[in-house]
Amino acid sequence: MSENEASRELLETFENPYPHRDYVMETVCPEFTSVCPKTGQPDFGTLMIAYIPDKVCFELKSLKMYLQSYRNVGAFYEDVTNRILDDLVAATDPRWMELRAEFTPRGGISSTVTVSHHKED
Amino acid sequence: MSENEASRELLETFENPYPHRDYVMETVCPEFTSVCPKTGQPDFGTLMIAYIPDKVCFELKSLKMYLQSYRNVGAFYEDVTNRILDDLVAATDPRWMELRAEFTPRGGISSTVTVSHHKED
Amino acid sequence: MSENEASRELLETFENPYPHRDYVMETVCPEFTSVCPKTGQPDFGTLMIAYIPDKVCFELKSLKMYLQSYRNVGAFYEDVTNRILDDLVAATDPRWMELRAEFTPRGGISSTVTVSHHKED
Amino acid sequence: MSENEASRELLETFENPYPHRDYVMETVCPEFTSVCPKTGQPDFGTLMIAYIPDKVCFELKSLKMYLQSYRNVGAFYEDVTNRILDDLVAATDPRWMELRAEFTPRGGISSTVTVSHHKED
Amino acid sequence: MSENEASRELLETFENPYPHRDYVMETVCPEFTSVCPKTGQPDFGTLMIAYIPDKVCFELKSLKMYLQSYRNVGAFYEDVTNRILDDLVAATDPRWMELRAEFTPRGGISSTVTVSHHKED
Amino acid sequence: MSENEASRELLETFENPYPHRDYVMETVCPEFTSVCPKTGQPDFGTLMIAYIPDKVCFELKSLKMYLQSYRNVGAFYEDVTNRILDDLVAATDPRWMELRAEFTPRGGISSTVTVSHHKED
Amino acid sequence: MSENEASRELLETFENPYPHRDYVMETVCPEFTSVCPKTGQPDFGTLMIAYIPDKVCFELKSLKMYLQSYRNVGAFYEDVTNRILDDLVAATDPRWMELRAEFTPRGGISSTVTVSHHKED
Amino acid sequence: MSENEASRELLETFENPYPHRDYVMETVCPEFTSVCPKTGQPDFGTLMIAYIPDKVCFELKSLKMYLQSYRNVGAFYEDVTNRILDDLVAATDPRWMELRAEFTPRGGISSTVTVSHHKED
Amino acid sequence: MSENEASRELLETFENPYPHRDYVMETVCPEFTSVCPKTGQPDFGTLMIAYIPDKVCFELKSLKMYLQSYRNVGAFYEDVTNRILDDLVAATDPRWMELRAEFTPRGGISSTVTVSHHKED
Amino acid sequence: MSENEASRELLETFENPYPHRDYVMETVCPEFTSVCPKTGQPDFGTLMIAYIPDKVCFELKSLKMYLQSYRNVGAFYEDVTNRILDDLVAATDPRWMELRAEFTPRGGISSTVTVSHHKED
Repeated sequence: MSENEASRELLETFENPYPHRDYVMETVCPEFTSVCPKTGQPDFGTLMIAYIPDKVCFELKSLKMYLQSYRNVGAFYEDVTNRILDDLVAATDPRWMELRAEFTPRGGISSTVTVSHHKED
Repeated sequence: MSENEASRELLETFENPYPHRDYVMETVCPEFTSVCPKTGQPDFGTLMIAYIPDKVCFELKSLKMYLQSYRNVGAFYEDVTNRILDDLVAATDPRWMELRAEFTPRGGISSTVTVSHHKED
Repeated sequence: MSENEASRELLETFENPYPHRDYVMETVCPEFTSVCPKTGQPDFGTLMIAYIPDKVCFELKSLKMYLQSYRNVGAFYEDVTNRILDDLVAATDPRWMELRAEFTPRGGISSTVTVSHHKED
Repeated sequence: MSENEASRELLETFENPYPHRDYVMETVCPEFTSVCPKTGQPDFGTLMIAYIPDKVCFELKSLKMYLQSYRNVGAFYEDVTNRILDDLVAATDPRWMELRAEFTPRGGISSTVTVSHHKED
Repeated sequence: MSENEASRELLETFENPYPHRDYVMETVCPEFTSVCPKTGQPDFGTLMIAYIPDKVCFELKSLKMYLQSYRNVGAFYEDVTNRILDDLVAATDPRWMELRAEFTPRGGISSTVTVSHHKED
Repeated sequence: MSENEASRELLETFENPYPHRDYVMETVCPEFTSVCPKTGQPDFGTLMIAYIPDKVCFELKSLKMYLQSYRNVGAFYEDVTNRILDDLVAATDPRWMELRAEFTPRGGISSTVTVSHHKED
Repeated sequence: MSENEASRELLETFENPYPHRDYVMETVCPEFTSVCPKTGQPDFGTLMIAYIPDKVCFELKSLKMYLQSYRNVGAFYEDVTNRILDDLVAATDPRWMELRAEFTPRGGISSTVTVSHHKED
Repeated sequence: MSENEASRELLETFENPYPHRDYVMETVCPEFTSVCPKTGQPDFGTLMIAYIPDKVCFELKSLKMYLQSYRNVGAFYEDVTNRILDDLVAATDPRWMELRAEFTPRGGISSTVTVSHHKED
Repeated sequence: MSENEASRELLETFENPYPHRDYVMETVCPEFTSVCPKTGQPDFGTLMIAYIPDKVCFELKSLKMYLQSYRNVGAFYEDVTNRILDDLVAATDPRWMELRAEFTPRGGISSTVTVSHHKED
Repeated sequence: MSENEASRELLETFENPYPHRDYVMETVCPEFTSVCPKTGQPDFGTLMIAYIPDKVCFELKSLKMYLQSYRNVGAFYEDVTNRILDDLVAATDPRWMELRAEFTPRGGISSTVTVSHHKED
């Protein structure tokens, strides 16, 4: 893995224990950090993931390792948020998933990106 | 009861005093604790139960005893939340019920599971 | 009035000054107290009343006296909340009314009951 | 103007700078005070006004003077809130307006009145 | 540029990295200041921008420079908020955009203006 | 016991398990209620007790029963607070004790009484 | 009483029920209002009074009436705060008294005045 | 270890990296639980430990295991708090240590015990 | 006045109405803004002034005008805070004065400068 | 610089503009991150620095770069906090300095280290 690539393959899953019921799992990760591709300065943010699992759930420790793999990756806010959603969807194929990323202020301005995915019937 | 089994039979009910009216009873239990089946470490969480009772209501003291019976039970977040909903539905057969379980952070990541049940007409 | 009966007749009303307009009056009463019928211990709670008056509004001082008449009455949460709604509806015949009663924790568990009434056309 | 009459004529307006677009102006006035008509004691409250202006907007300083003219006026909560809405609607003829008045506690009970107006097409 | 004109041309954009997906970018700018055209006194406010980008996103540093160009501009609340929305829409042609401007209290009264834009199909 | 007398004899104590060490026990009782001797209206308050036990500690359940015995007693704020301190000191003879009683607002005015006792050497 | 004079004689006292003990009575009055002598505009503030009574305590309802007598009095912040302390000291001759007056913002600036009195031995 | 004995020997230490300087280490453990010796019901609390280490510091993971060993131990508030301080002092012999244990409400009453230790010169 | 000089002469004073008593006047100004001398970017902050006046008090409107004169002045945090204290001391010669300036974050780092002055006897 | 060494030489200073006066500069850095030397997992914390500068002040941008150099350094809480204080003292030789480092929870336990330095006369 190069410095500029996070590791989608770190994500592990386990079988959904209640696949016959739609339920929502929310996960809050307040310790996300990556690097601004323009200035090389670190960015900090809180990721909030909500999803309705289908056949599998993501395993929390592997999620943590996956998110840590962004520590030295350079990525814009809009880009990194969409990319993480893509990876989580690829790993778990959920019925529905939303990712909200709140980044800490830069230059007196704070930003939040919200992306979501609905499984096609 | 083995160490790995909570006690559904602890749940007691009483007759709904206003069955002709749909109303919502919400109960917050901030002192839920069980055990992680992988590491053997205790988990802590807050359970929020909301329901529209039909013929019976659950009795609060028996709810407390029932939830305390998870103290030494090993169960994953997704599993234990769905299991408690199943037990509460079996005991009270409500018109509607929702259970929201907020677990305290592990490895910098906090999780919440929300499950609900609608009575079929 | 026996010790176990609150006084519906304490509720007074006055003519709605703007009956041609639907508007919402909300009232918060954080000092409600009654007695647990099982243990004889006092219960404490906050009542939140919202309604759209029709021909009459309830008078606030009489509402206070009415609620104080529960001070030594024994009643379960589900019961007392529905009973107060019934009394308020009987006194004011509102277009819509909702009563939300938040009770303070007992045994680490807190409870809220929400009941509502819609006038039939 | 007698002591019991607030001054609707104090309200001034200016031309809406963007009449072709529906937008919402919200104004919060935490320093409203009038007098209880029954006891002669002062009442205190916070007024929250939201509206979609049509041809004109109200001028903020004149709104302040208008609200101050209630300082020695006696009026019940339900009455004063509806009356202020009527005056603001008369002055600005808005597409939509809502007024929410939160009064400070009296006898341990606090009250909020919410009234709104929709322009007929 | 005269003292009374902010600089729309300061706004820079970059290509939307995920144009095939509707997602929301929110930006909070708590350090907005302009000048009251009547009194010459400074006004302070917080701008909250939310939008679904189409082909381009605005660049955050250029947004900051653009907003700073209002520092010595005189403008009423209703006017300045609509004008900034117009400029942001002109620069990014978004699928949807909302701007909420909360201004600090003047004379004990605080104001908020909310404007939005939907792209026509 | 007459209606106007609370029951000091309800207070029970147990032997201080660590009498050789000065340590502070704080207890918060947010559900205190008594009656205004002038108006007959109920008063509500929160009692905060802090003390350094000497030979004995008060038992919490008996403290609760003792405080509940004020439910129908008429007493002024300054009076009832000093009286409770006297009773707690008589029952436990502590090295130091402080009682802070915060009463809820009446007529828009809230009151707090703080009394303390130091054991003479 | 002229419009510019508040009424010290409104303050009533009662005998201190525990004069042999130093204890602190705190009173919070969030509904104080007077008039700016320069602009004629109303000022709003919260008064916090703390004192150790000696022979007498002030009566709360009379305190309220006394503070209401400032409703149409013109007085600067520094002046009115010192004047109220003088009146309260004259009425109760306390062992110690502190008055803290927090006024709401004017021109974006908020002010607090704190004055105190110690009885000479 | 019997059910009624926590395990002091679980506490591990490491060499203080800066023994020549007095500095304060604070640790907050919001997930403490033990059992009421009278009722057999679980108690919950938050422990706050502050100390100036001398030759050794306690290791955080071992602290966690030590505190978890109270999970099924019966102990009164005053007792358990003093006992934990004794164990931590025995393990680390600190220059100064304070332990504050806040327990969640029981019967509407919450309790906090604060104990401290100063090394004799 | 050049662009780099704020205007000390804007500060006006009035005679202290209670010079025989030491009392504290606190003033909070949340709308301070100046310019970073290095980058030319605006800085924002909240100033908190507390003082015991001697012969004169500063007039609040003139304080506001004085602080607004920093709007286009370039100055470092440490410098501007000390300079404002010097000006306020020169204008009022107080018995004691403290100035606390909290600046909003820059680059994820926020700063506060606290300076004070005691009159020599 | 090896991976295990932060860069003290990154710290830059500038001349104290008011060396004749003792004043306090406080700086809060909520985005500190380093690596646990045992597990290789990232740690997160907030650093709060307060000091009375003597001849020089540290420059804020260089402080940020210096703290960022810990991003991939492995260090225990007690160690890293003392080390940063040593570096800041070496760079600025202040009259007084305090560093408080609050680390986010691990295993349900959060930690704070506070170290300080006083210049010898």
